Amino acid sequence: MLNLRRFAQALVLLAVLSTPALAQDPTPPVQGERHVFTIDRFTFESGATVPNVQVVYGTYGTLNAKRDNVILLPSHYMADFHGYEPWIGPAQALDPSKSFLVATELFGNGHSSSPSNTPEPFHGPRFPVATVRDNVEAVHRLLLSLGITHLRAVAGFSMGAEQAFQWAVSYPDFMDRIVATSGTAKCWPHGVVRLEAQIGAIVLDPAFKGGDYTVQPKQGVDLFGLVWTGWLFSQEWWRKELWRQMASPGTTFETFLSSMRTGFIPGADANDLILQARTWERHDVGATKGFDGNIEKTCSTCRRRPIFTSRSPTPATKRASSRT
Amino acid sequence: MLNLRRFAQALVLLAVLSTPALAQDPTPPVQGERHVFTIDRFTFESGATVPNVQVVYGTYGTLNAKRDNVILLPSHYMADFHGYEPWIGPAQALDPSKSFLVATELFGNGHSSSPSNTPEPFHGPRFPVATVRDNVEAVHRLLLSLGITHLRAVAGFSMGAEQAFQWAVSYPDFMDRIVATSGTAKCWPHGVVRLEAQIGAIVLDPAFKGGDYTVQPKQGVDLFGLVWTGWLFSQEWWRKELWRQMASPGTTFETFLSSMRTGFIPGADANDLILQARTWERHDVGATKGFDGNIEKTCSTCRRRPIFTSRSPTPATKRASSRT
Repeated sequence: MLNLRRFAQALVLLAVLSTPALAQDPTPPVQGERHVFTIDRFTFESGATVPNVQVVYGTYGTLNAKRDNVILLPSHYMADFHGYEPWIGPAQALDPSKSFLVATELFGNGHSSSPSNTPEPFHGPRFPVATVRDNVEAVHRLLLSLGITHLRAVAGFSMGAEQAFQWAVSYPDFMDRIVATSGTAKCWPHGVVRLEAQIGAIVLDPAFKGGDYTVQPKQGVDLFGLVWTGWLFSQEWWRKELWRQMASPGTTFETFLSSMRTGFIPGADANDLILQARTWERHDVGATKGFDGNIEKTCSTCRRRPIFTSRSPTPATKRASSRT
Repeated sequence: MLNLRRFAQALVLLAVLSTPALAQDPTPPVQGERHVFTIDRFTFESGATVPNVQVVYGTYGTLNAKRDNVILLPSHYMADFHGYEPWIGPAQALDPSKSFLVATELFGNGHSSSPSNTPEPFHGPRFPVATVRDNVEAVHRLLLSLGITHLRAVAGFSMGAEQAFQWAVSYPDFMDRIVATSGTAKCWPHGVVRLEAQIGAIVLDPAFKGGDYTVQPKQGVDLFGLVWTGWLFSQEWWRKELWRQMASPGTTFETFLSSMRTGFIPGADANDLILQARTWERHDVGATKGFDGNIEKTCSTCRRRPIFTSRSPTPATKRASSRT
């Protein structure tokens, strides 16, 4: 059984632990099996049809004969499928001996189809802006290809939570529950303001050249990280210097801030960073067909099925979290 | 008598009303008299001594014979002395018929001595980083030059509040009270993270050229505004689209955001913007001589005199607000 409380606590730490400046557990407890699912032709919501679209995913454990022991773990911003591994293991919240775990990677992370790895005419800035629904749709096809028609849970952090909410709206009968942590059912305007400032940092770097760069716009990507750093931790966290608990001895505020700037998402491609930020900005379960922009609407054609979030033990079908 | 509650309410609106994209009262209720105070040689805390340092200020009302009817209004980030005028008038919180109002402009605002208006060897990026204490020190000399040795109040918003707190610490016997709104006794680390991201936006513009630009780095200054815009209003403010109450009919989210980006502080000089951001970052009443870094220390050599903040009616001498 999924330990919801422990899992939620663990996920909250993800943003911290995924930053390179901080101490990491040197030995992840488990390694998943890497797979690639290919869709011959995938039409994005934008209308663009791209050939050979790929979804990278990892699996842990064994799919049982009934194919009913599956938990889907959609990834957060720029993560790969290994992102949930600190919480996967025999004594962990996600136990591969009890569940078959499928951890998927978002379009634009540099491994699944992305601006950086897609040939022309969809390379770089010409890669279509994927929506969270596009990602859910592609993974839905992946699961069906594995003979999986029902999930025990969709559990995700941040953009993973966005996907969990979208799953609950697009396919409310497909899972027993969702576990959505640090994510919303819609990116509200303030989220757009923040992300546009981050995107603006990359675009301002003269090396960016409208997305057709020959070298990564490193200074712009660094500033992208610095702008985001301001939003990542609380005022109290900074004031109490809680970064000292995770940084190497001797680290100063200045060196810590510098490391956040220069190593926010190491090796990330600038167009990929922008693509996923646009995916984030456009997230809105209310834009799902039949919802007419209302994120709290109950779809009359959908059966009501209790779907639990980690913060709300009450039935939440079609009543996804709506905070910014 | 200063109506503290009304004044505080008014000041909270300053950040909103000072943005160009929003509706303004077309006829400010009163105009001040502009003056310039010159200091032949001023030594900043950094050690740099600059000749002919100027402090621009405005006055309203008449200094009485006893010279004891003075309220000091130190300005906020990049403001000129007109910034408090919406609340100055016969029926306003600040009544020139009852008080002599002195509204001062910070170093670096483009009028008082600034990177943009100071000749070499202190022009542009070579202008010394002024501290809030430097500003208080210069205004202290200005007041003494006018024969003013005591104030009814020091009242300020944002960096004006920073100055009010510094006045209470540097010259606790000089005023009856301070009125500090939307400001802190110290710029805590999170404030530095935010401001460094804003500064980084200007610096990244290739037109900036390390501060020795020939044309303003407009794109960088625009991004500076966009990054700040994310911090200026609450998530709820954006979500409820409260900007509609102040924007012209027909304004969309996109056009409003664009106007915030391109018109945040119209006409501001890039080096001036950076200078005042550095002044903000270094603000710390605890760095005052005798305080040893402790912003809550009671100076043993100071008389205890009740100093009231707008939010706290309890005596606050040496117990300035310490929130980020």
